[in-house]
Amino acid sequence: MKIGIYGYGNLGRGVESAIGQNEDMELVGVFTRRDPKSLEIRTPGVPVISAADVLKYRDQIDVMIICGGSATDLPVMTPALASAFNVVDSFDTHARIPEHFANVDAAARCGGKTALISTGWDPGLFSLARIYSNAVLPQGADYTFWGKGVSQGHSDAVRRIEGVLDAKQYTIPVPEALEAVRSGSNPQLTTRQKHTRECFVVAKEGADLAKIETEIKTMKNYFDEYDTTVHFISMEEFRRDHSAIPHGGFVIRSGKTGYERENTEIFEFSLKLDSNPEFTGSVLAAFARAVFRMNTRGEIGCQTVADIAPRDLLNCSKEQILKMI
Amino acid sequence: MKIGIYGYGNLGRGVESAIGQNEDMELVGVFTRRDPKSLEIRTPGVPVISAADVLKYRDQIDVMIICGGSATDLPVMTPALASAFNVVDSFDTHARIPEHFANVDAAARCGGKTALISTGWDPGLFSLARIYSNAVLPQGADYTFWGKGVSQGHSDAVRRIEGVLDAKQYTIPVPEALEAVRSGSNPQLTTRQKHTRECFVVAKEGADLAKIETEIKTMKNYFDEYDTTVHFISMEEFRRDHSAIPHGGFVIRSGKTGYERENTEIFEFSLKLDSNPEFTGSVLAAFARAVFRMNTRGEIGCQTVADIAPRDLLNCSKEQILKMI
Repeated sequence: MKIGIYGYGNLGRGVESAIGQNEDMELVGVFTRRDPKSLEIRTPGVPVISAADVLKYRDQIDVMIICGGSATDLPVMTPALASAFNVVDSFDTHARIPEHFANVDAAARCGGKTALISTGWDPGLFSLARIYSNAVLPQGADYTFWGKGVSQGHSDAVRRIEGVLDAKQYTIPVPEALEAVRSGSNPQLTTRQKHTRECFVVAKEGADLAKIETEIKTMKNYFDEYDTTVHFISMEEFRRDHSAIPHGGFVIRSGKTGYERENTEIFEFSLKLDSNPEFTGSVLAAFARAVFRMNTRGEIGCQTVADIAPRDLLNCSKEQILKMI
Repeated sequence: MKIGIYGYGNLGRGVESAIGQNEDMELVGVFTRRDPKSLEIRTPGVPVISAADVLKYRDQIDVMIICGGSATDLPVMTPALASAFNVVDSFDTHARIPEHFANVDAAARCGGKTALISTGWDPGLFSLARIYSNAVLPQGADYTFWGKGVSQGHSDAVRRIEGVLDAKQYTIPVPEALEAVRSGSNPQLTTRQKHTRECFVVAKEGADLAKIETEIKTMKNYFDEYDTTVHFISMEEFRRDHSAIPHGGFVIRSGKTGYERENTEIFEFSLKLDSNPEFTGSVLAAFARAVFRMNTRGEIGCQTVADIAPRDLLNCSKEQILKMI
């Protein structure tokens, strides 16, 4: 299977290393909107190609994995590429998934291609956990917790505050809330009760630390509904302890069964990730395999993780899969 | 969707209550090898029918959910019914799944029917966790822990010991082993290190308790490779505290990502079930929906959970599913 990577940030690098872990995949090229000469990639012998030339490669790539941002890149990129390539993306703006689906579906059908949008871990594996758990437990309550992990958006927001040199924000599930959900008591939880936020901030010399802390804690939409802790640290400590991009989370459904619905069944899925972009890249690579197989069978148009039979994700024979059942 | 239940033990009753939780399902009949008059079922107005008459109902049932045991019932029942009905079973003898698959596939294809074997939680949802986690983390190690829960086979084995009136055996994961796996250290664990066994025994008056305890702890294949605790209790305490059938467990894959495979990603799926048969019945009902839809689309033959697109498990529109992504 010949794979192209379109966009080479953290996620693109994660996809690149995932391709190296899948024997049936070959990286054909990395496409970038930057000057290709400015990019050093890790896989020996693979060309870096200008995004402007992408259509020249339409017959050389089985699946293009699009590694752009959800805010402005993917809503344009994925429909634009889906009529020429089988594509996979990680579009994660939940509210806009129906609109993105429609745009990508029209493009893919026009070109006889297969597209898969919104995979990764949330949306992606967490969506699958919601779907399976709702299917087997029609009566119940869903809970999603994120973290402990780095929120890029919140880190960016802190960095924009005057006097801040660098910053990292961790989202942390409240242990008592997690335990209440696992107990089957189906608690009603406010935003503040579910997660706390912790910020590590490197301030400029002479900056007003109290003012920075207040600005963070009262920031609308980002921090005002949470209990937030702010730590000021040195650049040295920041670089030593906060350069990784861990993440994770929990999807829990607490359901009732039996004639009197007296029994509680707890379905829990969790991830604890050292590297959010490497894991997300690994998920995108597995779903690229399914997209290629579906296109080979003539199953065109836009798909989501709900449409993919799990066997199509594996580089395994039918006999090997029966052994995993 | 019109559902039949073939076999009415704990699992059959679990399926019956699950059908009551799914608005698109209707229970048409319960089939039994016992005298139908001897059976009282919970759903008002639904007939209990002799298993001998099952073929008379071939045009009235969309999916037959077969609730027999894996040792001797299902290897015969599922192939026998699969040429006349779309069927679902919970065949759980892992080593014999390929053989069962081949027998059921031949029968289903002969009759133009769709069959799904080996669903429930293990095999079933645990199989799905193994498949998804192996697909997204090709390099790593798999761990499965069962419990805390009741093992029917081990409870039966204890009950067969002379001097035992009744008994229940709980399988319990060792917390330190679970934590070692979650830490990403990829430990090699022996049988004894992964689970302990705990037995609650009601002995006959005057029975030799020390002898019973020794017989349990040294029983080949069942207990000799485990650390086992035996508690002798009264029949009153037994009935009060040990009449439920809880179970559950954990599937964990600990994988490596990145160019140097230096990052650890922990994928964990767990279930904590008050009622093993009610939850298993709920899973069978959801997969019955998928089997019916596949047959309607002409997708015949034997399937496993690996072949089912998750959307087919849900009683939801495409728009509703997009909102769950």
